[in-house]
Amino acid sequence: MNFKIICRVIGFTLIIEAGFMLVPVFICIYDREKSVAEGFLLPILFMCAIAAVLIFYSRRAKKSFYVQEGLVATGLSWIAMSFFGAMPFYLSNQIPSFIDAFFEIVSGFTTTGASILTDVEALSRGLLYWRSFSHWLGGMGVLVFLLAVVPAASRVTGYSMHLMQAESPGPSVGKLTPRLRQTALILYGIYILLTILDVIFLLLGKMPLFEALCTAYGTAGTGGFGVLNSSLGDYSPYLQTVTSVFMWLFGINFGLYFMLLIGKFREFFKNDELRLYFTVTLLSVIFIAFNIKDMSGSFANALHHSFFQVSSIITTTGYSTVDFDMWPSFSKSILLMLMCFGACAGSTGGGIKISRVLLLFKEARRNVRKIMHPRQVEVVTMNREIVDEQVLQNVNSYLGIYCMICMASFVLISVDGFSIGTNFSAVLACFNNIGPGFEMVGASCNYSVFSDFSKLVLTADMLLGRLEIFPILMLFKKGTWTRLR
Amino acid sequence: MNFKIICRVIGFTLIIEAGFMLVPVFICIYDREKSVAEGFLLPILFMCAIAAVLIFYSRRAKKSFYVQEGLVATGLSWIAMSFFGAMPFYLSNQIPSFIDAFFEIVSGFTTTGASILTDVEALSRGLLYWRSFSHWLGGMGVLVFLLAVVPAASRVTGYSMHLMQAESPGPSVGKLTPRLRQTALILYGIYILLTILDVIFLLLGKMPLFEALCTAYGTAGTGGFGVLNSSLGDYSPYLQTVTSVFMWLFGINFGLYFMLLIGKFREFFKNDELRLYFTVTLLSVIFIAFNIKDMSGSFANALHHSFFQVSSIITTTGYSTVDFDMWPSFSKSILLMLMCFGACAGSTGGGIKISRVLLLFKEARRNVRKIMHPRQVEVVTMNREIVDEQVLQNVNSYLGIYCMICMASFVLISVDGFSIGTNFSAVLACFNNIGPGFEMVGASCNYSVFSDFSKLVLTADMLLGRLEIFPILMLFKKGTWTRLR
Repeated sequence: MNFKIICRVIGFTLIIEAGFMLVPVFICIYDREKSVAEGFLLPILFMCAIAAVLIFYSRRAKKSFYVQEGLVATGLSWIAMSFFGAMPFYLSNQIPSFIDAFFEIVSGFTTTGASILTDVEALSRGLLYWRSFSHWLGGMGVLVFLLAVVPAASRVTGYSMHLMQAESPGPSVGKLTPRLRQTALILYGIYILLTILDVIFLLLGKMPLFEALCTAYGTAGTGGFGVLNSSLGDYSPYLQTVTSVFMWLFGINFGLYFMLLIGKFREFFKNDELRLYFTVTLLSVIFIAFNIKDMSGSFANALHHSFFQVSSIITTTGYSTVDFDMWPSFSKSILLMLMCFGACAGSTGGGIKISRVLLLFKEARRNVRKIMHPRQVEVVTMNREIVDEQVLQNVNSYLGIYCMICMASFVLISVDGFSIGTNFSAVLACFNNIGPGFEMVGASCNYSVFSDFSKLVLTADMLLGRLEIFPILMLFKKGTWTRLR
Repeated sequence: MNFKIICRVIGFTLIIEAGFMLVPVFICIYDREKSVAEGFLLPILFMCAIAAVLIFYSRRAKKSFYVQEGLVATGLSWIAMSFFGAMPFYLSNQIPSFIDAFFEIVSGFTTTGASILTDVEALSRGLLYWRSFSHWLGGMGVLVFLLAVVPAASRVTGYSMHLMQAESPGPSVGKLTPRLRQTALILYGIYILLTILDVIFLLLGKMPLFEALCTAYGTAGTGGFGVLNSSLGDYSPYLQTVTSVFMWLFGINFGLYFMLLIGKFREFFKNDELRLYFTVTLLSVIFIAFNIKDMSGSFANALHHSFFQVSSIITTTGYSTVDFDMWPSFSKSILLMLMCFGACAGSTGGGIKISRVLLLFKEARRNVRKIMHPRQVEVVTMNREIVDEQVLQNVNSYLGIYCMICMASFVLISVDGFSIGTNFSAVLACFNNIGPGFEMVGASCNYSVFSDFSKLVLTADMLLGRLEIFPILMLFKKGTWTRLR
């Protein structure tokens, strides 16, 4: 294990985070919130100092950078980033418990949007901004950002495919261009462009700039932290619809937008995952709309809220316009199913990912056929290409480990004594990076009811979900640390 | 597809069922319940007539009998068996709705033990006997019985491994002896011996013969239908303990008992699945005992009820001594987890099976290692033997299809509008052939609250769970029926 190169990655990550933390400092100065500004400045200084030490220490790091290094660097970077990112909440005393602050910022970076705050509006604007911005940074990934903008990171460019693979969601990561840095730049380019478009549309609907920025960050990262206690419930139908549409757009594989940009329309529209994503969304919206018709006044209104909520849950954002915990069981069950599905691979959304669901289904079908015709060799295809058997095996293991972690977390948090529905949906909502669940953690409630122990379990679930299990799992593997020495 | 041989198997199945249905007829005559006796005799006549036609029609059936035939024959036999088995309840008017009667008998044959009856004790003894006996017959499997006792079935002996495979639970079925008929005989021999032992121990505890027989049938088949409304709650601690122990024993792979009988003690005690089964049971009992200590009076009492319930749930029996829905969330969560695990492969228990859980875990661990060392070839071993990659793939697909069916059923039954906890545990309790779930389907409640539609969904789940998905799936496959013509 190349320990130095890992230190280097962590060092650069902290520098980037410190840089982004300067923005809320200016907001605090503008708002004359001195103590909050100090709560930001102190960790910024710390991070710069630690980063300087790490980068200096690793100045002669060997270039060897393999899968293990990629996973460990990603896991540790995210934990370090969350540790310092939680500081401002804690130091400003606006979230007095550090575990709560850590929960909140991990929920931000992992684009979960689960909150322990009972009154969001009481928070300073600087903290609100930082909370929402963490969604934006975590959505596309801070390491992808590192690859895109820090030239020094190119010292390991040839190998940092592993870094990108460890941080980007989905069963397989495609390079859009032969040069990795260019791929990272393109991804962030599209991401920034879409975010700006979202902000413009929100401003056209007369949303104040600060709220538009925060809402757009939450939409782009498919996070779900709002700046109002009612989430998006108090905004106009226009603003809600803009957000519905953009949430859905951010759930699409960003590689496909690149295909659109370079004129490969066929590749976009014939994409198996996108088609399934569209179909699942459409069917869910229609089913739920019919189910909630009676309680929504008109069918148009039912359709409006149904589209918003389906888009919010399938992309694992977690915004809400109404308290969907009040909806009938049938609608809630569909939403619970969508929680697991998640958005497309290579998007900012969480969950198992539509492409994995599709591969699981295709492989199951293949194996049923194989039982009948044992000697027949059949391959699984996606987008008219043969899927590698190793990818299929990984998808299967992923489901296995996914189920095991869900179950273990479910048992662990049940010590708090809440109902099966609460515990089950809390685990799914955190692990799939959604945010709100049902019953005690429903859209109008929050996670403050849980004990510190359960909060830590759910924090771990959020990280496991966002980084797709392996980077975090690797940190707890015996072999990882024995080979360091 | 060899249609005639399938008819032949169904014909013999009906004959066997008709034979076993004569026992409750005698009970009814003894109890002077004329109308109930008629309710049994009418379907018996029908079954004999249909069986005669089927067997005559298939007298010159070709011997070709492959996996497909095995699966379709098993699926259809079980449905036919359940259809006629439900008749007595319906015709005697003691369960006035046929869907309810069908639910009840499918619950019996699949050894689920989920009931729609609100007052079990109101049922005639003949029906109570038939209901409990269906557990015993379904536990080891009616087709295995067919192979064991009907010489004419040996016309296809060479090929009927497929029949046994389709009906026996677990990732792979081992032949105990080179001759299949002998294997089936040994399995039923051990089964009958253990059942008799159970009855003797129950009689020693002064349980009336009728109740001892019914309780032993439910224990042996890991079914869970009781003859009293309180399940086993009103029996003495001795009787409860006897049942705890026997439930656990019936959850062990019967192949291992054969190893014991022929003196291969090492193979028994070094068996990976058995060791995990023992460990999981032990840990669960201890955790739950500590958790329910305060509400049980003494720790000994807590241990007693904890062992009973763990044994009942992990073997998917579903008997209860107390209303475990009143237990703390932590205990309930452990039980919910055990519901999915299930007992050992090759036992009469349901669920995913311990050996599948073990294989899933081992394969996940292997794949994590493979991510780090892509070129390293590593095999998965169980009981110090290499596990075939095809078996691993099947186990993975099984989990995939398992999750899909659970999710689909969960959404479908949610139209009735019950809570997430009720729906989720109802699906798990039926699909894993347990019986009682939590909340509205808890130990002191029953399934009568559901609509006919949901009852049919849950009935399908029970069959899918008992036959491990494929035989039922095959009936709905397009190819199966087009190739018949």
